[in-house]
Parts: sequence; structure tokens; C-alpha cells
Amino acid sequence: MYTIGIDIGSVAAKAVVFDGNDIVAKDIIPTGWSPKDSGDILLDRITKYSNIDKNDIKSIVATGYGRISLPFASKKVTEITCHGKGAHFIDKSIRTVIDIGGQDSKVIKLDKNGNVSDFLMNDKCAAGTGRFLQVMSQILEIDISQLSDIASEAVPLNINSMCTVFAESEVVSLIASGASKESIAAGLLKSISNKTYSLVSKVSVEDKVFFSGGVSRNYLLRNLLSEKLNVEIFSSEQSQFLGAVGAAIIGHESL
Amino acid sequence: MYTIGIDIGSVAAKAVVFDGNDIVAKDIIPTGWSPKDSGDILLDRITKYSNIDKNDIKSIVATGYGRISLPFASKKVTEITCHGKGAHFIDKSIRTVIDIGGQDSKVIKLDKNGNVSDFLMNDKCAAGTGRFLQVMSQILEIDISQLSDIASEAVPLNINSMCTVFAESEVVSLIASGASKESIAAGLLKSISNKTYSLVSKVSVEDKVFFSGGVSRNYLLRNLLSEKLNVEIFSSEQSQFLGAVGAAIIGHESL
Ligand code: SF4
Repeated sequence: MYTIGIDIGSVAAKAVVFDGNDIVAKDIIPTGWSPKDSGDILLDRITKYSNIDKNDIKSIVATGYGRISLPFASKKVTEITCHGKGAHFIDKSIRTVIDIGGQDSKVIKLDKNGNVSDFLMNDKCAAGTGRFLQVMSQILEIDISQLSDIASEAVPLNINSMCTVFAESEVVSLIASGASKESIAAGLLKSISNKTYSLVSKVSVEDKVFFSGGVSRNYLLRNLLSEKLNVEIFSSEQSQFLGAVGAAIIGHESL
Repeated sequence: MYTIGIDIGSVAAKAVVFDGNDIVAKDIIPTGWSPKDSGDILLDRITKYSNIDKNDIKSIVATGYGRISLPFASKKVTEITCHGKGAHFIDKSIRTVIDIGGQDSKVIKLDKNGNVSDFLMNDKCAAGTGRFLQVMSQILEIDISQLSDIASEAVPLNINSMCTVFAESEVVSLIASGASKESIAAGLLKSISNKTYSLVSKVSVEDKVFFSGGVSRNYLLRNLLSEKLNVEIFSSEQSQFLGAVGAAIIGHESL
């Protein structure tokens, strides 16, 4: 007996299969133009690859900005609730989730039962989201996944503008003046860490802190943020799937 | 006996010559990479073309973000003060100046003597500045000066994101889905009018309202803003030169 959680984010669509105890399969694809198509493809792939019988799927819960586009979902739940559920499942001692996705960033506070006690979200400004790093990687002509690697040994250059558009011009000028990609990348990670800090510090950050969302794979950003917040920040293999995990669990709970 | 006012903005550098009664010459060039170079070129051009004797120049006052880079300036004054002075010179009944430049937007309140009684400025976010329209014109593959013309007869499409980066993606999608440039342009002008309104409405807008800065040449934007604020909005040939005019007058006053 399985439940499926699907999280259609702005950039990536994620799905997981939950068997009542464990996450037994997960999959991720780009969201592309159509959240509905991504949902169909994901559902098809994950049932095929995990070799589960469609009749054993008892519930499909959808979350993420594209959740409204999935007609096959039995339930639609907000990202905030799903991220909270997912984090609590991964580690019961998590009290703060910092999530940076492709086009938003959020901080979620959890009580000891995994219920959301407070949250803050930015989805209006590209600064401080994956979009910022995506725009900048394009200018640096590197893949977004390389950012932490190339920046790790460099002295960060100051990027004065928080705004993605103005920071873009700054980076173009820095490249023109001969600055190294490494030091620019380090400066950009510092900039997004500052922006995240200013969001996160509006709530009282409590241990244990978990970093999720696509951008959490930037280990250097995690370190910078950890230093600024003066707290250890955890992440895991599941960090990109937190919303989908939470959705699958909510599906299971409501069986 | 002349004074010169130079306003080095982020996008355009402007200079005017004041003879104690009137503005007798004006010039505008792109600021480019070096505010210092633009200042030198402007000073050279305006003295040449206006045929004034260098010895008759009694003062050069600089304003705008690049003012610190001009060694030849006898005085450096903030944009806010200069815009106030300039507006009061153009029309003594102006009480509110809305200025949208290449990378900032501001609203300035003036008392009946032309002194600044209040102001608000946005120079942190590209939305609501000329930069927004510049980015969007590039995507639409039109010149920024054509925006009002092509939009004037169209029904505006809704652009949901205020953020320049997110709105850019929206526009790309709209083009892909076959929307006309005309209706997108109209939507973009509506968007920047909403953003400007949200800044401007934080102060009490008093008659007479003057619209200045490079973006003020968009007559459709002026109309939209006028409707939203429910007040007539004036502009003039000098509207891009307001800061430089104010600087030249301040130079004259301190002779
Ligand atoms: S600051 Fe920049 S990135 Fe943020 S909303 Fe404004 S334009 Fe967008």
C-alpha cells in the first residue's frame, strides 16, 4: 500500500513514493512550461521505475505552486505544511527549515509535533532565490552546480546590489575589469547568504536547523549561513524532496 | 556670467548652462562606463556648442550618482535638492516631483519656496525604474522610446510579477503564447505605473505634480499615473534636465 507525494515547484518537479514506513522511490524532472505535463510524466515514471502496482497507490497528494494543475491528485496541500511534515519525518528534532527553491525562499518554524508554528516566505523578489544564482551562473558561463566548488578557495568580492538585475550589471563590470570567476562566485554566494539571513533572522531560529530546496546543495552557502546564524545547519539527500515527502505522508495519514 | 549644472545619472549624463535668468544650453550623453569621462566630454561639448568663454563660467555644480567622480566641480549637491530647485525654477507652483530615472525612482515634496519638505526614493530594486523598461524593450525587440507609441491603442495584458526578473519570464511566455507586442507593452506600462503609484502614494501628493527623469517621456505612463493618482501630471522639455537645472541654479545662488 503506497502513497505518492508530488511537489511541482517553479523549476523542478519532484515525486516520492511512501510505503507507510519509508520513502521507497524518488524522482525529479524539470518543471518546464506545463506543470500538468510534468505531473503526468513524473507519475508515469515513478510508478514504472519503482515497479509498484497502480492499484496499490492509495493516495496522491500534490503540493508546490503547480499543484492546482494536477487533476489526478486526491488532495492539494500548501508547500509550507508539506515542508513541515517532510522535515519532521526526516528528523523529529528539526525546529527550523530554511528552504531556497528556484523562485522563492522561506523559513518555517516547527513545534515538537512537527506542526508549523510560524513561517515567512519571499516569492516576490528574485534576489535570495535560486533564480539569482541561475542568472549569475549564466553570466559566469558555469553550471549552477559548480558554484560552491569554484568559490570554495576564493576570497569573495563584494557585490553591492541585492537586486538581481543590478547585481547582474555589477558582475558584468567585474568580469570586464578582470576579476576571477572564483572570487565573483564566492561574492555571489555571500550575497545570497546575506539576503537569506535577513529573511531568516526575522523569526527566532531554533535548533535543529535544516536547509532544503534545490539551492541547499550549495554547501558553501550552507557554511556561510551557518556562520552568520551561529548555528549548525543540516541537510540531506532528501532536502530537495522535502515537500514531496511531506505530501506523501499527509496522504498516508488521511487514509 | 554663467553657471553650469551637471547631473551624472546611472544611464544618462546631462548638463545645462544658466545665464542667471534662463537655461541657455543643454546637452545629454550616455553615462557609459566612466562617470568621469562623461563629465569631461559633457563639459567640453556644452562650452563649445554654446559658444561661451570658459572664463565666464563662474561655477560648475555636480549632482547625480556620478557627481563624486568630477574633479572640476566646484560643488557637489544631492539629486533630491537639485531636483527640488530645478522644479521650482521651471514652475513655482510645483509641489510634487515624480522622477523616474534609469536606475531609481523618487518622489519629492516641495514647499512654496521650493525647499524639499519630504522625499522617498527607491534605488534598491530595478522594478519601477527605467531599467525595468529597458530590460523589457530588449525582450520585445523594440526601442524603449517606442513603448508608449506601440502601446497606446492596445488592451494591456496583465503582468503579475512586480519583480523585473520574474516579469521578464512572464513576458517571454506571453510572446511564446502569441500575445501581441502592443498589448504586452501596454501591460508593462501599467505595471510600472502601479509600482510608481505604490511609492508615490506613501506621501501625500499635492498639486501641481511634475513628472521628470528619462522615463517621463513615456506619455502613456504619465496618463496612467495621472488616472491612478487622480491628479493632472505635467512634464516638459526640461524634464530630463531637472537635476542639472537645479545644480546650475544652486551654483548661481552661491556666487
Ligand atoms: S530587487 Fe530586483 S530582484 Fe528583487 S524584486 Fe526588485 S527587481 Fe526583482
